[in-house]
Amino acid sequence: MSGILYGVGIGPGDPDLMTLRAARLIASADVIAYPVLERGDSFARSIAAAHIQPGTPEIAISVPMSVDRAPAQAAYDTGAADIAAALDAGQNVVCLCEGDPFFYGSFMYLFARLSTRYKVEVVPGVTSVTACAARAGRPLVARNERLTVLPGPLPEDELRARIAAAESVVIMKVGRHLAKLRMIIADLGLTAQATYVERATLPDEKVLPLADAPAEAPYFSMILITKGADPWL
Amino acid sequence: MSGILYGVGIGPGDPDLMTLRAARLIASADVIAYPVLERGDSFARSIAAAHIQPGTPEIAISVPMSVDRAPAQAAYDTGAADIAAALDAGQNVVCLCEGDPFFYGSFMYLFARLSTRYKVEVVPGVTSVTACAARAGRPLVARNERLTVLPGPLPEDELRARIAAAESVVIMKVGRHLAKLRMIIADLGLTAQATYVERATLPDEKVLPLADAPAEAPYFSMILITKGADPWL
Repeated sequence: MSGILYGVGIGPGDPDLMTLRAARLIASADVIAYPVLERGDSFARSIAAAHIQPGTPEIAISVPMSVDRAPAQAAYDTGAADIAAALDAGQNVVCLCEGDPFFYGSFMYLFARLSTRYKVEVVPGVTSVTACAARAGRPLVARNERLTVLPGPLPEDELRARIAAAESVVIMKVGRHLAKLRMIIADLGLTAQATYVERATLPDEKVLPLADAPAEAPYFSMILITKGADPWL
Repeated sequence: MSGILYGVGIGPGDPDLMTLRAARLIASADVIAYPVLERGDSFARSIAAAHIQPGTPEIAISVPMSVDRAPAQAAYDTGAADIAAALDAGQNVVCLCEGDPFFYGSFMYLFARLSTRYKVEVVPGVTSVTACAARAGRPLVARNERLTVLPGPLPEDELRARIAAAESVVIMKVGRHLAKLRMIIADLGLTAQATYVERATLPDEKVLPLADAPAEAPYFSMILITKGADPWL
């Protein structure tokens, strides 16, 4: 009988923000899989490290970061084949996913390759969206308010129109798009309502009014804009 | 010295989807607080029950569900005063929040009343948004896709316009708005891409194509529409 593939959200960074189910699945996994970016380290593995039993076989999927999708697709093909081999041998494979597996997570590419042939269970995790709001002390949405999540790499005109039309806004993947985003948010008169959050819940986290954000942002950074008209009371 | 107020997200329903930090804080709390709806039971308390130490004092905040906000506001005033009294006595108070405290959570009303006077820590939790996607096996957003979260009670015209303009959409608080939402989604030609999820991650969960949804939906139900143009591969 084939093993089960678990796509496990391990939360935004603080290992304590992993779910009980994630911790248990990691500790009892036959095989652990995770993505590794070009830099060579795996953020996901570092979050989960304390729960991985010594000697557990690991599948590290090395994912090139490039605009051309073909090299990344080839990496997921190889990773999926390695995982499939373990599943075929009856082993349960736990794939570690930063945040939540289905929310901008690389697990989706493995899910697309394997979910029709194997039993797959997705375990949701805490996303950086609510982690950033928590760390910023900024409630996201109440009652009938709307939330819009936008990736920073979107074109300037689209970002401008969507931020203007939105209520609460979370902008993901700020990174090298920070200057563009600052300008759009200033043009819309929203700078005072915007918070910059970098590496939320990690020891080197930064939470600042957008006006005080550093000139350069890492990939794991967000901007939170809350303009809900509802009073919180 | 005053105690600390913890607003603790306990996830969408399955107690195993609570974070390690939430479980630890609940187990070591001096006082536990939670909202109780008119029906008399507390969903939040039921999720956390296994971690509450016997004999821990509890503050149950009875919140009337009505269109008029005044009775609910009065309930939060009373609850905040009870919590303040415990904090003044140096006790740490853990307030249980279904899902995430800052994502459509009632904790926001306590936060507004107490965060200027006391130390408050918000612990993010798994929201029903990613829990529903996980249970439905439907990836939410990848790469540069956008996510829009809409409450079902919004007016029909606004829902129609916002769903049409969105990519992936999550509609919260479906409940008695199911018929209206079905009609809008059918008009937009999106029924085949819509999944209905009721009481996600609980033993009596339902996950169905929207076309097969029951005639009546409970408050804790959602509709997920994924129309991302990106292939997942």
